[in-house]
Amino acid sequence: MYPLKQSIKPRPNLDNFAAGILNGDRVILGQAITLVESNLEADQKMASRLLEKILPNTGNTLRIGITGVPGVGKSTFIETLGRYIINSGKKLAVLTIDPSSEISKGSILGDKTRMEELSKNPMVFIRPTAAANALGGVAYKTREAMFLCEAAGYEVIIIETVGVGQSEVAVKNMVDFFLLLMLAGAGDELQGIKKGIMEIANAVVITKADGDNVRHATEAQAVYQQTFHLFSTPDSGWMPTVLTASAFTNEGVDDVWKMILKYHHETKSRGFFDKNRSVQNVAWFQEYFTQLLKVDLQKSKSLQRTRKKLEQAVADLTISSQAAARQLLEAYHHTVRGIKSSKQ
Amino acid sequence: MYPLKQSIKPRPNLDNFAAGILNGDRVILGQAITLVESNLEADQKMASRLLEKILPNTGNTLRIGITGVPGVGKSTFIETLGRYIINSGKKLAVLTIDPSSEISKGSILGDKTRMEELSKNPMVFIRPTAAANALGGVAYKTREAMFLCEAAGYEVIIIETVGVGQSEVAVKNMVDFFLLLMLAGAGDELQGIKKGIMEIANAVVITKADGDNVRHATEAQAVYQQTFHLFSTPDSGWMPTVLTASAFTNEGVDDVWKMILKYHHETKSRGFFDKNRSVQNVAWFQEYFTQLLKVDLQKSKSLQRTRKKLEQAVADLTISSQAAARQLLEAYHHTVRGIKSSKQ
Repeated sequence: MYPLKQSIKPRPNLDNFAAGILNGDRVILGQAITLVESNLEADQKMASRLLEKILPNTGNTLRIGITGVPGVGKSTFIETLGRYIINSGKKLAVLTIDPSSEISKGSILGDKTRMEELSKNPMVFIRPTAAANALGGVAYKTREAMFLCEAAGYEVIIIETVGVGQSEVAVKNMVDFFLLLMLAGAGDELQGIKKGIMEIANAVVITKADGDNVRHATEAQAVYQQTFHLFSTPDSGWMPTVLTASAFTNEGVDDVWKMILKYHHETKSRGFFDKNRSVQNVAWFQEYFTQLLKVDLQKSKSLQRTRKKLEQAVADLTISSQAAARQLLEAYHHTVRGIKSSKQ
Repeated sequence: MYPLKQSIKPRPNLDNFAAGILNGDRVILGQAITLVESNLEADQKMASRLLEKILPNTGNTLRIGITGVPGVGKSTFIETLGRYIINSGKKLAVLTIDPSSEISKGSILGDKTRMEELSKNPMVFIRPTAAANALGGVAYKTREAMFLCEAAGYEVIIIETVGVGQSEVAVKNMVDFFLLLMLAGAGDELQGIKKGIMEIANAVVITKADGDNVRHATEAQAVYQQTFHLFSTPDSGWMPTVLTASAFTNEGVDDVWKMILKYHHETKSRGFFDKNRSVQNVAWFQEYFTQLLKVDLQKSKSLQRTRKKLEQAVADLTISSQAAARQLLEAYHHTVRGIKSSKQ
C-alpha cells in the first residue's frame, strides 16, 4: 500500500509535488492529499499553491457519490462497479469519507482497505479521507483530494460515504451523480436512511438482488420508483432511476454503469452538467471565503485576546451582547488597518 | 387592540421610546417592536441604540418557551396558564413565532389574535412576531422583542412556537424553561413532532386530558416519563417532568405553573439558572458579531461589485474558487482600510 510509505519518504517541494501529480505518481499523490489534510498553516499555504497549480488539469471527469447504510454492501458494490469502469479503459479514484470517526473516533468503514481486488489494480487509487473537525471541513478536504486525483489522471472519481451522517448533502454538492444504495427490506423501507437523502439521489440501487432475495428486491424497486414519481422533476431533467444489482452474481451492475453514462450524456447535451459544475464552483467560492474570513479572525493574537475579554464581560453581564459584538468588529477593522496589503 | 394604532401615531424619538417603554406604555412598546423588526438601516441603528438604553432594565424575569404541533391546543393552554401567572401578581408577555409565514406566506397561527381573554387583560401583552427571512433572524428579532417587554415591566415572558419547524432550538437558546405540549395519541406518539425536540424539553405536558381522554393521557404520561429516564441527566440537574393538563377543566394547569416555579427555584439555587443565561449571552454575542460582519460585507457597493465579478469568473471557470475567495478577502481588507474608524 503506497500511502504508508509517506512517513519515510522526504516530502517533495512545490514543483516536485505538481510534476509528480501531473505524471500520475501515486506516492506523491498520496503525500499531496496528506498535505491538503494537514492543519498546519505552512502546509495549508503550500497546499493552496499546489491546488492553484494543478487546477487547470482538473474537471474533465465524472464525479460519482455513493452512499448507503452500513451493511448495504458498499465496498463489494464499488469493487464490482469499479471493474466495469476500468474495463472501459478509465482510471478510477475512490475516496471514502467516514463521518463516524468525527464523533466516536472509531470507524464504520474500518481501518484496513477493503476493496482488495481494486486496490491492487494500477488503474485504481483508493484513499480514505480523514474526517475533519467540522462538516464543512469534511467536504473541503475531500474536494481538494478529488482535484488532486483528477490532476493525476483519474477520470472517474467515486466518493463513498456512510448514509447515516450529515455529509451526504456536502458530497452531493461536489459530485455530478449521486447514487443511494439500499437493501430490500420487508416493511419499513426507509429504515436507517436519513430523511431527505432520497430527494437528492439521482438513482437508487437495491443491492444483494440475488437468490431468494430477487423477488424482494424487485418489489422494493417498484416501491422506490413510485416514490420518485411523487417528487417534482429535478432541474437536471433526469428522473431518478431505481435498479437492482448483485455484486455476488454481477447481475445488474453493468446496467448501473450504463445508467451513469446515460445521465452524463443527457445532462451534458442539455447543458445541465456544466451549469451544475458552475453552481458548485460558486458555492465553493462562498465556502472558501467564509473559511478564509474565519482564519483571518483567528490570526491576530491581540484580536483573540479582545474576543476573550469581551466574552467574559458578556458572561459577567457588564456589557450587552450587541455592544460587545460592535466592539469586536471595531477591533477587527483596527487589526486589518494595521496589516500591510500582501498577496499571501 | 393597541398595536393597530401604530400606523396613525407619529413615531417617538429615542428618548421618548426609552421613557415610554420603561413606563410600561403598551403603544410605545408595540411601536418599539415594530422598529426592531424593521430592516431599514436607519431603523436598525435606532433599535440598536434603544436596546442599549433599556438593557439594564431587562433580565430579572422568567422566560418560558412553549411548543407543540398545530391542534395540540397551545392557545387555550397558554390562556389558562396565563390566568395562573397573572393571578400570582405577575405581568405576562406572550410572543408568538410563526415559522410557516416564512415559507408559505400563510400562517399556521392565524392572523387574528387568539387568547381572547388574556389579550383584554391589562397585565398581559400579546404580540405575534413577524418571521424574518432567516432562521437566525427569527430568534434575533424575537429576542429583542423579549428584551423590550422585560424593560416594560413584564416579568414572565412566554415565547410560543409551532413545533414543526426549525425555530425550536433557537427558542430553547433564549428561554430559561422549554415546555413541549403533546397529545395523547394511540400508537405512534411522536408523530408530527420533529426529532430532537424531546431532548431539549424541560417538561412535556399532555394536553386535553379530560373526559374519555384522561386514561390515554395518563398512559402517554408514563411512556414519555420513561423516555426521559433513558436520556442522560441534563446540566441543569433537572429531570424533565411529564404532566397532564386540561385547559377545558383547568385540571393540572396549576401544577404546570408550580413545576415551572420549582424549576426556577432549584436551578437558581444551584447556580445553573444564571450560568445558563451567561452562556446564552455569549452565544448571542457570537451571533450578533456574525450578523454585523455580514452587514459589513454588504455595505460597500464596490465590494459587492467585486464579489459579483468574482462569482461570474468562478462560474466561467476563469478563476478557481480558492483564488477568488482570496481576492475577495483582499478586497474586503482594502475596503476596511479605506473607511475611517468610527463609533457608529
